[in-house]
Amino acid sequence: MTKITIAKGDGIGPEIMDATLKIILSAGAKIDIEEIKVGETVYLAGNTAGIAPESWDTIRRNKIFLKAPITTPQGGGYKSLNVTTRKFLGLYANVRPCMSLHPFVNTKHPDMDIVIIRENEEDLYAGIEHRQTDEVVQCLKLISRPGCEKIVRYAFEYAKQQGRKKVTCFTKDNIMKQTDGLFHSVFDEISKQYPDIENEHWIIDIGAAKLADTPELFDVLVMPNLYGDVLSDVAAQIAGSVGLAGSANIGEECAMFEAIHGSAPRRAGQNLANPSGLLQGAVMMLNHIGQTKVAERVHNAWLKTIEDGTHTYDIFRDQTSRLKVGTKEFALA
Amino acid sequence: MTKITIAKGDGIGPEIMDATLKIILSAGAKIDIEEIKVGETVYLAGNTAGIAPESWDTIRRNKIFLKAPITTPQGGGYKSLNVTTRKFLGLYANVRPCMSLHPFVNTKHPDMDIVIIRENEEDLYAGIEHRQTDEVVQCLKLISRPGCEKIVRYAFEYAKQQGRKKVTCFTKDNIMKQTDGLFHSVFDEISKQYPDIENEHWIIDIGAAKLADTPELFDVLVMPNLYGDVLSDVAAQIAGSVGLAGSANIGEECAMFEAIHGSAPRRAGQNLANPSGLLQGAVMMLNHIGQTKVAERVHNAWLKTIEDGTHTYDIFRDQTSRLKVGTKEFALA
Ligand SMILES: CC(C)[C@H](C(=O)O)[C@@H](O)C(=O)O
Ligand SMILES: CC(C)[C@H](C(=O)O)[C@@H](O)C(=O)O
Repeated sequence: MTKITIAKGDGIGPEIMDATLKIILSAGAKIDIEEIKVGETVYLAGNTAGIAPESWDTIRRNKIFLKAPITTPQGGGYKSLNVTTRKFLGLYANVRPCMSLHPFVNTKHPDMDIVIIRENEEDLYAGIEHRQTDEVVQCLKLISRPGCEKIVRYAFEYAKQQGRKKVTCFTKDNIMKQTDGLFHSVFDEISKQYPDIENEHWIIDIGAAKLADTPELFDVLVMPNLYGDVLSDVAAQIAGSVGLAGSANIGEECAMFEAIHGSAPRRAGQNLANPSGLLQGAVMMLNHIGQTKVAERVHNAWLKTIEDGTHTYDIFRDQTSRLKVGTKEFALA
Repeated sequence: MTKITIAKGDGIGPEIMDATLKIILSAGAKIDIEEIKVGETVYLAGNTAGIAPESWDTIRRNKIFLKAPITTPQGGGYKSLNVTTRKFLGLYANVRPCMSLHPFVNTKHPDMDIVIIRENEEDLYAGIEHRQTDEVVQCLKLISRPGCEKIVRYAFEYAKQQGRKKVTCFTKDNIMKQTDGLFHSVFDEISKQYPDIENEHWIIDIGAAKLADTPELFDVLVMPNLYGDVLSDVAAQIAGSVGLAGSANIGEECAMFEAIHGSAPRRAGQNLANPSGLLQGAVMMLNHIGQTKVAERVHNAWLKTIEDGTHTYDIFRDQTSRLKVGTKEFALA
């Protein structure tokens, strides 16, 4: 039994969390669940962090956190809980696999199978913004050598363990010679320690263009935080749907697993949402805690359901789908 | 006769410039050409700006500048001449049309016809970088209200003049609430003054995902500098090739026209390069200086050549191409 913390979040969060838990428990996951409240209700109760202080203790104690998407209220003062959690818990690596499920899910990129490893604590996400004059605002992009070293090493270790062949780095160091330049030079240094893994670097503009056009050229990718944010959404969407992708946020002590999409308040409570993203997060979680057999079982059942053409609205297409279902029916299947 | 400044640049630059000039002159362009030297040779002669001071006078005097791609030498101290020129001349708007030429050029996105209007002077391109400690470096992202106002207004005026229906704004203001928040709020303000043009805003992660997956959803897009840099390469590539796209850099006084791709030193001198990007830049230039008839003639001749299947190596595909040609033959055709 592994004790895990869960949070059902906002919008479609509770539905997809219930579906996900039902699936993994019936597949035999040995987990003990402790629930905490995060997100909109906590924000609106006056806590601008979106989480109560005791909840941090719970997360830290259990070390494993499965989190559904949350809604951050509009307007000043509210911090993004996603970002705060990553920083508070030192979750430096955000791992986002994007694989097409051709011919079962409609995609223009049938041979795509990549993993984006996104630096998860630094860059413009440091949240340091400042009004200089009435008319000029600034935001600080921070990059540190230890931060670069941790994420680049993680990417190569990941490639090694998963038997992947190549790690590609994207930066814009023709412009940001010091910040992105540091990331690039650390990449060059560390890649030398992995002679069996191919490595390459692209300036992000043309790199992103190639990724969007011919993603099958890539394998593992590593990049600073903001680039990883944008390009993991791009990659997930062109592989099939952002609704199908999960993500693992990995630190030295703790790890958080989630869907890459948001809480989609307009779809909430209608039994419409595709639980696949959070389910992928849960599969990564099961692998992380060593319950690899269960992870495999869940993954296969999920693949089978998708392959059978049992699709929720977001990936339903005439050519590939057979049965249009809601969140609950998808989970049952 | 309009006097223009040209620079042949580096790598494939001279070949595509010669091809471009030959084409537009034989189409009847009434231009008087003054050539300046920029790029690698100037850098390596010890001028870290890549351009001689007198050349600025030439550019300012003639106001219209057609520039081939240049190579910036590796290593510290060299400034990107592209970026310096944009700033020195106050070229605040970078206009990048990306249209697919289906079925003549291979693309997965046959109905794509968008224009990216990229802010061209601010953002992380301000070039303010700084080593804080031995292990921490930072770069400043600067956004100003006048800068946002100019570019957003330009985008709506452009849409109005070109009879386009919608302007879409991309920012990451859920994280960068002050900087990207300012851009977004200026967009909201100014869009109200154009009730006949539809407007919408997307967070850049999911916005970029939609752009890469279903570009036909978009029309005119406006965004901060770095996002525009990356997404214009993405858009040009999925429309057909970055080699087909040109760009106009527009200021109050001067304007510069170029290809969006680089100098591709490895392809230089081999009569391989596709001159289309610079040629598109030249067509925008001809429209800008009021020689719209000539612009149309060049554009139609170019379209016809592409439609005939006379393609350079980069867009040559078995399904769509008939004749594989070099730079010179393409220009002749
Ligand atoms: C919700 C937002 C703060 C978050 C991010 O920008 O990291 C999300 O887009 C993601 O990718 O997990
Ligand atoms: C060469 C480089 C400095 C330039 C930029 O980043 O703006 C280029 O990528 C472009 O898009 O024109």
